[in-house]
Amino acid sequence: MTRFAKLAGSVAIVATMLAPVVASADDKDVIDYRQHLMNTLDHQSGALGMILSGVIPDKHMADHIEIISLVASLSPKAFAPHVEGGQSKPEVWSKAADFDKKMKDFVTGSANVTKIARDQGPTEAVNHILDALPCKGCHDLYRDPSKK
Amino acid sequence: MTRFAKLAGSVAIVATMLAPVVASADDKDVIDYRQHLMNTLDHQSGALGMILSGVIPDKHMADHIEIISLVASLSPKAFAPHVEGGQSKPEVWSKAADFDKKMKDFVTGSANVTKIARDQGPTEAVNHILDALPCKGCHDLYRDPSKK
Repeated sequence: MTRFAKLAGSVAIVATMLAPVVASADDKDVIDYRQHLMNTLDHQSGALGMILSGVIPDKHMADHIEIISLVASLSPKAFAPHVEGGQSKPEVWSKAADFDKKMKDFVTGSANVTKIARDQGPTEAVNHILDALPCKGCHDLYRDPSKK
Repeated sequence: MTRFAKLAGSVAIVATMLAPVVASADDKDVIDYRQHLMNTLDHQSGALGMILSGVIPDKHMADHIEIISLVASLSPKAFAPHVEGGQSKPEVWSKAADFDKKMKDFVTGSANVTKIARDQGPTEAVNHILDALPCKGCHDLYRDPSKK
């Protein structure tokens, strides 16, 4: 079975080509995909940080938190294949139980704070963001920012 | 009026500080914020492209399209202040009517294709993605990728 696979590149729609539908990715694809997720989190955390520090109005705080929550929901599966590389430390897999728990907490916490931001507004959401988005707690253990 | 403004940085929760709530951003903040949005779109388009080309399973295609749609909804306002810089060409503001129309089409189109992906699944969504996410049509006119 094939289908038209249309590649929406980061800058341009690059190509239209016939490609088989595959259910698995090779190692480079696995790394590239999870880096797209983590880089999205970087930029959304950056935007959220600008709101939290007061330089950008907080009207759309809930949208940014929801984007983070959506990316969070995709992340555990992206790290499931034991493919070392990128900025991931080997501990992602050698300490999988702890990593998985932290990921699960991130998924749950970011979904909860999205609901708080939507239902109760940004002022209340601020009180929960640090607990819900524990970027540093995970990155200190599992990310090597010196790698590409 | 003040509040605790907590700065969620891209890698770490950097600081907790008292900051005034401000309703406007200076020029660097305006550029930084819209770059966070556009870089998010780059990475989400990259992830979506991997799904469309078949190397990543399409189970979560709708999530990626919804993320793009959420970022799209924030984008017109991010470009509203006439602040040149970053990769934005001056034409963003000198041809504002056309730019605004393209932005509006992007907001509407990405919302529509999110609904198609959620309701009808990825196979049907693929037929609408190129029209709904016209990255190249806008970037060719309004983005200078040689700039930082």
